[in-house]
Amino acid sequence: MGVVVQKYGGTSVADPEKIRAVAERVVSTRKAGSDVVVVVSAMGATTDDLLDLAHQVAAQPSPREMDMLLTAGERISIALLCMALIDLGYEAVSFTGSQAGIVTDTIHGKARILEVKGSRIRAALAEGKIVAVAGFQGVSTSSDITTLGRGGSDTSAVAVAASLEADVCEIYTDVDGVYTADPRSVPSARKLDAITYEEMLELSASGAKVLQVRSVEYARNHGVPIHVRSSFTQAPGTWVVEEAELMEQAIISGVAHDASEAKMTIKAVPDHPGVAARIFTALAGEAINVDMIVQNVSSHGHTDVSFTLPRGDLPTAQPVIESPCAELGAEGFDTEHDIAKVSLVGAGMKTHPGVAAQMFTALARAGVNIEMISTSTIRVSCVIKETDLDRALVAVHDSFRLGEAAPS
Amino acid sequence: MGVVVQKYGGTSVADPEKIRAVAERVVSTRKAGSDVVVVVSAMGATTDDLLDLAHQVAAQPSPREMDMLLTAGERISIALLCMALIDLGYEAVSFTGSQAGIVTDTIHGKARILEVKGSRIRAALAEGKIVAVAGFQGVSTSSDITTLGRGGSDTSAVAVAASLEADVCEIYTDVDGVYTADPRSVPSARKLDAITYEEMLELSASGAKVLQVRSVEYARNHGVPIHVRSSFTQAPGTWVVEEAELMEQAIISGVAHDASEAKMTIKAVPDHPGVAARIFTALAGEAINVDMIVQNVSSHGHTDVSFTLPRGDLPTAQPVIESPCAELGAEGFDTEHDIAKVSLVGAGMKTHPGVAAQMFTALARAGVNIEMISTSTIRVSCVIKETDLDRALVAVHDSFRLGEAAPS
Repeated sequence: MGVVVQKYGGTSVADPEKIRAVAERVVSTRKAGSDVVVVVSAMGATTDDLLDLAHQVAAQPSPREMDMLLTAGERISIALLCMALIDLGYEAVSFTGSQAGIVTDTIHGKARILEVKGSRIRAALAEGKIVAVAGFQGVSTSSDITTLGRGGSDTSAVAVAASLEADVCEIYTDVDGVYTADPRSVPSARKLDAITYEEMLELSASGAKVLQVRSVEYARNHGVPIHVRSSFTQAPGTWVVEEAELMEQAIISGVAHDASEAKMTIKAVPDHPGVAARIFTALAGEAINVDMIVQNVSSHGHTDVSFTLPRGDLPTAQPVIESPCAELGAEGFDTEHDIAKVSLVGAGMKTHPGVAAQMFTALARAGVNIEMISTSTIRVSCVIKETDLDRALVAVHDSFRLGEAAPS
Repeated sequence: MGVVVQKYGGTSVADPEKIRAVAERVVSTRKAGSDVVVVVSAMGATTDDLLDLAHQVAAQPSPREMDMLLTAGERISIALLCMALIDLGYEAVSFTGSQAGIVTDTIHGKARILEVKGSRIRAALAEGKIVAVAGFQGVSTSSDITTLGRGGSDTSAVAVAASLEADVCEIYTDVDGVYTADPRSVPSARKLDAITYEEMLELSASGAKVLQVRSVEYARNHGVPIHVRSSFTQAPGTWVVEEAELMEQAIISGVAHDASEAKMTIKAVPDHPGVAARIFTALAGEAINVDMIVQNVSSHGHTDVSFTLPRGDLPTAQPVIESPCAELGAEGFDTEHDIAKVSLVGAGMKTHPGVAAQMFTALARAGVNIEMISTSTIRVSCVIKETDLDRALVAVHDSFRLGEAAPS
């Protein structure tokens, strides 16, 4: 009997009624002839409520204790889901991350999965049981409870699926799949039937919220097919698979956007070796996650260096930048809050030249000024003014006719 | 350095402010020169809230999953307590029942502790840390999470104290010790400085709420001194110790009462061997916890058998009783809901005759009719009408001058 791993997020198990609905969905998969392992997140706002409590008892809660605290959330949802499954007449058993053998490193708050032992999961499946596993959590190599970071339940599900060599890892969410663009910004956006791991990685890293980046990496590295689908309908969603498995490869898969970053520009830095190293070493020392970096053409021995970073990191970054600015003899720095990044992603770019040019043309015709550009083999990203964002998304989406079904 | 184990109940950790107050109390014990292990219950109404959720997803929640669910409660409180301790500048680490090595049998919902390994507790203390342990929970011999039943955190604390050979197990509560009677019923009730394990066992079993019976048994069996005291004051409370350690042994320690039971009487049963066995085997088969049993003097070959049981068990007990009643040719049975039990407890009874007679006299003078009597070597219990309860308590308490300090 094949194994299906299903992952339900916090909104899918937000209250007892929704938990009963999830239980019925699990049972229908079971009736269709598969063993089922269900990975569940904490109910609705549980994690936020627990975070609030933590900040009421301590100014800087201990990361180890924070993980001990937050993992109560999934414990509650796996227990309730199993009660509901048993109430429907099925044998079911819940396992915490630790009981499921999800072993991680020791970095509290954003641990990485090292191994999924899964012996108790396999034994329970062999006894004919449905298994519920707590998402988002594991046990470290030093026997402490860890969490995988926000959205970590996606990674838990993929890792469990890899360990069990499951037929599929189904990620249930409140949208019905991966779209060519966010439908709230681009009304003509179309649901994709399938997408490659690489494209999904670029979309997730460029701001698409549907899957955690790390879960896609893990799925690619272990060859786990992911099926992103809605918990409210039975319609098929979007498959995330190897490029070789796609029947038809579109040139462009979609447009993602990210309006959560800010831009800093260090002005008139002397253009000699070691300058970039000095600046970005200082930022890395404060664990600031720099995204795009662009160095403009040097004029008269001086150059401007621009980079983007999460807006929340600005208060930390500004004082960190001051000292290398002074040392290097730069003119100073500018900060721009209201930027947005538009990214066009498609595996076909590798073999179709002119994609970037077409994107820039579409933006120009829409009157959108490009402030920064960065590219990978299957992605072109442009930083623009946040006020231009919706116009830019529609222009790029229309230019590549992403709203129309791929030719068959 | 000696070890002090402190246990705080749900009301002591009901909100972030109270958790911070507990942390300060723990720190003051630490500053006074002891290693401290803190055993904590779930915050305030958490357990009841989780029970509500369970009954919303399933008519008869699975006991294994119920334990998985409820143990989230103490996980939350130990993590928050450690955050507060660390915020005060102390190293602290929390352990679940499983991490603390509290091994139980496999009876979900009322597991018994088999062993406390405690190796992680000892290692953390050796590193100079304060340790918080989740009360009420353990891990079974088959690696499932178990709970010890309501009030089980007292037993967790005593068991941890026994394992660590602690100097004392301090049980913090919202009263300042063990009283000669419930002060809400008997205003002249006096706090006891000390009491023996045996007396405390009888008081707890007779309705005194201050300590769970099993925790007192465990403390007696392992020689753990218990100190019951208030979490709101620094005043000493009541020590529960071996009889040999008491400086001065009062004849009577206190009066307990229990108004949670009902009484059933099976009328005119033929008085021959096997009758009692037939009736009480039937009740035991339904797990009904019968307390007192009294068989009246036989008249003309027939006898009345009366017994008390929890009121909540009446609906189950009545149909169970009908069939043996018919088989034995009894006349039928009566049920009385509004009874109460008054118990006088004192180790001195063993050597002072006349205590029971003095109690009956006090009740008679107060106009209280006795319906049933049962005794042990250090206890006399009388079942009376519930409406007579407060009058009876005051009469017995006054008769033995329990409100006056023991002569020195």
